[in-house]
Amino acid sequence: MSCIRILGIDPGLRVTGFGVIEQHGSQLLYVASGCIKSNDKQSLPERIATLFAGISEVIATYRPDQASVEKVFVNVNPQSTLLLGQARGAAISALVHGGLPVAEYTALQVKQAVVGHGKAAKEQVQHMVVRLLGLAGAPAADAADALACAICHAHGGQGLGALATAGYRVRGGRLIG
Amino acid sequence: MSCIRILGIDPGLRVTGFGVIEQHGSQLLYVASGCIKSNDKQSLPERIATLFAGISEVIATYRPDQASVEKVFVNVNPQSTLLLGQARGAAISALVHGGLPVAEYTALQVKQAVVGHGKAAKEQVQHMVVRLLGLAGAPAADAADALACAICHAHGGQGLGALATAGYRVRGGRLIG
Repeated sequence: MSCIRILGIDPGLRVTGFGVIEQHGSQLLYVASGCIKSNDKQSLPERIATLFAGISEVIATYRPDQASVEKVFVNVNPQSTLLLGQARGAAISALVHGGLPVAEYTALQVKQAVVGHGKAAKEQVQHMVVRLLGLAGAPAADAADALACAICHAHGGQGLGALATAGYRVRGGRLIG
Repeated sequence: MSCIRILGIDPGLRVTGFGVIEQHGSQLLYVASGCIKSNDKQSLPERIATLFAGISEVIATYRPDQASVEKVFVNVNPQSTLLLGQARGAAISALVHGGLPVAEYTALQVKQAVVGHGKAAKEQVQHMVVRLLGLAGAPAADAADALACAICHAHGGQGLGALATAGYRVRGGRLIG
């Protein structure tokens, strides 16, 4: 059975979440997750350097085969949109520099893949990430979003239908049984 | 006399301009300039890869000591702001990955440093870049902006006052004599 290691990234200038999972056929295994934080007292180039180095270190440590990055929202504040764009550009730079093919998914696609509908609350996403990966506790919000993005990629960007065919039982956007 | 080689960058997803100059005391010498273009038929990660690789190649070829990047505008179109932000994040990633200290200047600072006032038209910036570096012809607009950004850094982000003290004669935002 082929095994693919997927690195999910939830980009942000202040906090970038990462999550690594392994896909063995229809089974998903948790490998690692965490957050890369940058200090808002530093200059933008210094913060980008921290983010780039952090993701490069994650790649060197966990050696993923593919990457999956959440598409970011256009913020109501244009300056925030610009900062978020720069963080996302740095994150994708680190991924392509690390030789990884990069897939992109909208928050809607990620929620549909993990919870079964696009209007799921953050807590539902966290809950399903814990269930799907059999975690002992809930990871931090940004790490959970990154893991959800990796799970979405594992399911080919598809919804819970993919889970159902993989032997999971799904009702009302939740795994049962 | 110390010699500093400065790489100026005018970031953009479609076209990123670059310009390399050498500062020998108060004298500025042109080294190279050009544009890195990405294909808008490619995916965003592919375009970011092109931009990152292009800047990395410029660094490897011309071995600058310092980098100077123009701060980008918040666009009226939020989606354009996001794309521009991602290009700028990729450009700064390539610079910090190349080990360069990165300075940032607003378009206002660049125009003040090169033309003497912040409301200068693009053509005036091009004209002054040609004059200050003694070029035989005008470089492309994005390359000229990148060279202007490098000149701004060479003058410590200061205006034409710095040029005047360096022996240039300035009147009405133009070099004379």
